[in-house]
Amino acid sequence: MNFDEIITLDKADPLAKKRLEFDLPADTIYLDGNSLGALPKSVKPRVAEVISQQWGNDLIKSWNSHNWIDLPIQVGEKIAPIIGAAQGQVICCDSISVNLFKVLCSALKLNSERTVVLSTKDNFPTDLYMVQGLSDLLGAGSCQLEIVEEQDIQQNLTRSVAVLLLTQVNFRTGMLLDMAKLTQIAHDKGILVIWDLAHSAGALPVELDNSKADFAVGCGYKYLNGGPGSPAFLYVAKRHQVTVKQPLCGWMGHANPFAFDPNYVPSHDINQFQCGTPSVISMSALDAALDVWQDVDMLQIRTKSETLADTFIALIKMNPCLHELTLCSPDVAQLRGSQLAFSHDAAFAICQALIAKGVIADFRAPNILRFGFTPLYTSFEDIWRAVAILVNIVESEQYKEPRFSITLKVT
Amino acid sequence: MNFDEIITLDKADPLAKKRLEFDLPADTIYLDGNSLGALPKSVKPRVAEVISQQWGNDLIKSWNSHNWIDLPIQVGEKIAPIIGAAQGQVICCDSISVNLFKVLCSALKLNSERTVVLSTKDNFPTDLYMVQGLSDLLGAGSCQLEIVEEQDIQQNLTRSVAVLLLTQVNFRTGMLLDMAKLTQIAHDKGILVIWDLAHSAGALPVELDNSKADFAVGCGYKYLNGGPGSPAFLYVAKRHQVTVKQPLCGWMGHANPFAFDPNYVPSHDINQFQCGTPSVISMSALDAALDVWQDVDMLQIRTKSETLADTFIALIKMNPCLHELTLCSPDVAQLRGSQLAFSHDAAFAICQALIAKGVIADFRAPNILRFGFTPLYTSFEDIWRAVAILVNIVESEQYKEPRFSITLKVT
Repeated sequence: MNFDEIITLDKADPLAKKRLEFDLPADTIYLDGNSLGALPKSVKPRVAEVISQQWGNDLIKSWNSHNWIDLPIQVGEKIAPIIGAAQGQVICCDSISVNLFKVLCSALKLNSERTVVLSTKDNFPTDLYMVQGLSDLLGAGSCQLEIVEEQDIQQNLTRSVAVLLLTQVNFRTGMLLDMAKLTQIAHDKGILVIWDLAHSAGALPVELDNSKADFAVGCGYKYLNGGPGSPAFLYVAKRHQVTVKQPLCGWMGHANPFAFDPNYVPSHDINQFQCGTPSVISMSALDAALDVWQDVDMLQIRTKSETLADTFIALIKMNPCLHELTLCSPDVAQLRGSQLAFSHDAAFAICQALIAKGVIADFRAPNILRFGFTPLYTSFEDIWRAVAILVNIVESEQYKEPRFSITLKVT
Repeated sequence: MNFDEIITLDKADPLAKKRLEFDLPADTIYLDGNSLGALPKSVKPRVAEVISQQWGNDLIKSWNSHNWIDLPIQVGEKIAPIIGAAQGQVICCDSISVNLFKVLCSALKLNSERTVVLSTKDNFPTDLYMVQGLSDLLGAGSCQLEIVEEQDIQQNLTRSVAVLLLTQVNFRTGMLLDMAKLTQIAHDKGILVIWDLAHSAGALPVELDNSKADFAVGCGYKYLNGGPGSPAFLYVAKRHQVTVKQPLCGWMGHANPFAFDPNYVPSHDINQFQCGTPSVISMSALDAALDVWQDVDMLQIRTKSETLADTFIALIKMNPCLHELTLCSPDVAQLRGSQLAFSHDAAFAICQALIAKGVIADFRAPNILRFGFTPLYTSFEDIWRAVAILVNIVESEQYKEPRFSITLKVT
């Protein structure tokens, strides 16, 4: 593979023009959109308008005149087609952790004869922590967390399991689970399934409805480019919405919040999953960011994502000095999300050296170097240049300089 | 009282200059800062910088370089002096409803021999709903809500009560509860106390530490001027922080979040009360908004607030055509927060007519007209002009025009 071939790939890329919709910093190759998405150009003017005109000038009237009250639904409906959900099933609210608590409680209540929540050992920690917190609150007699290795999920789907809680794409390795298959097997055993889409929403075609998923949660700040700490979303399948009850009964989930009735009566649709007053500024940023997706074909996203990652692997393999980077992600593209993980004893220092040279990747303890590929704004030339810089850092042993070993607060 | 006296009050006001720190719309008298605070001038440049520079340019590195990771603590510490809390006890996170759930569970666990949560019938509904949701989740054997009239709180503080949950200033009437006294009586009976400061933080001097309060929650979007749906805060008295455990165990509350340990180990300080990733854009807006408070004396806030409201009442009384407006707030200033409520059969239509003429008040079902006084930016001339417009609307019966009776989505 040579530079001409790379340029040919960019020229043939039907998504190449989407990059123009983002403000990307000069002299930076950003391969961390799986952690924090880049800034869509639509966000800044929208937030400025929300602050100056809607808040500053129209003040409290904006709940009606600028429809702040409908933002959670409006943003949810923009996310829905990206994750394969028909209308009326997705809402934007709170954080992914808080939303997980809502759907966990809901699922356990729907399946109240059973108490086990099955998840994977290498799930993103907050998912496991939320189950642990719920288990502490309810007692192990009502909620028990069991964790297994990813390859052992299927054999552990027994009739004692109430809820299967899985992250579709592993945050470290990028391994992609088969949503349709695992949901089907779980349902056959009477198990409800919650999918965490943190690393898959916007990264690949997600098929919630087609997979008959029960619940899902996801965040706005990774592949959806909603900004740091952007509000999260949740999905509740239509068939569960009439019977389900979630415990974080804030006034925004009430059937009639402005009646100020002292008794809680849940809204009988997805609105029930709202809790407190929505975060209008942050949610407006996400709303504007989602406009980027209006003309995007998720199959094109997937094809480009696979080709970007395969190209990256091919370039790594071409360089003998990089042989100590061991791929921890599946080597078959169809079994991955849109990121690659490599282990290396000096992963932390290499990551810091890359960042110092303008290649933004990230490190996950203890020894993982992660590279995210975001088809909306990552080019094949980015990949080429990133590997060239990586080769330079490793070959010259620059990463061994003491300045690259200083521990940062957040890594 | 005449216009000259009003102008004299404005001239003598030590807080008058603070109004210059806000962007207030022309031709508007804003008496709804108790619902959504006005826009501080510091917010727009700060949010623009967070979006363009921190997110857009510095991307993921900003968690360290712009200290996003410390925002919840930094904002909490800015709120602390406004609510009478020493360092290390306040954190900014989530919504007031979600935070209420955390402290409710924490308090019930600390007082686990008892099950009753006592609150008031006229508490803000979300407070009651959150207890109802928790009671549904845990079962009435673990959590029971009992509600009483405000005047009956004291006599209901019995040894079966685990937690007393009170809003310091009633959202409808503006009635102010005696925090120190009620907390003391509750403690004497072995009851833990949660204070909701939604209508008091920034409205008057709050004395959490001096009152020996156990827990408190509050929001950023009212008197703290953090913007629509601004992140909320919570307070946990230092003495409880080592033993307390809250159930929404998100990764940001872990003692070492970036170790990605599958087992939850709570941070043994106020950080434990964080849950998911903080909402950086919204929290930065609140952070900037709080700078307005740096040189503010809360006693001056209180004095001006009382005088504004007393002046408003005096002007109402001077106008015989307003005699059908019945004050529902205590008539003694010391027993009120910083808002006044009047009942009137046509409250909704009068409110709409006022808004059409640039006086922003709000309506609370079934028949309450609310006026909020925000000493940082409300002038005595505002009060004078607002009453003159109210007189005009009532005298001319303009409010009876059909256009003022159209029901809005949010009122």
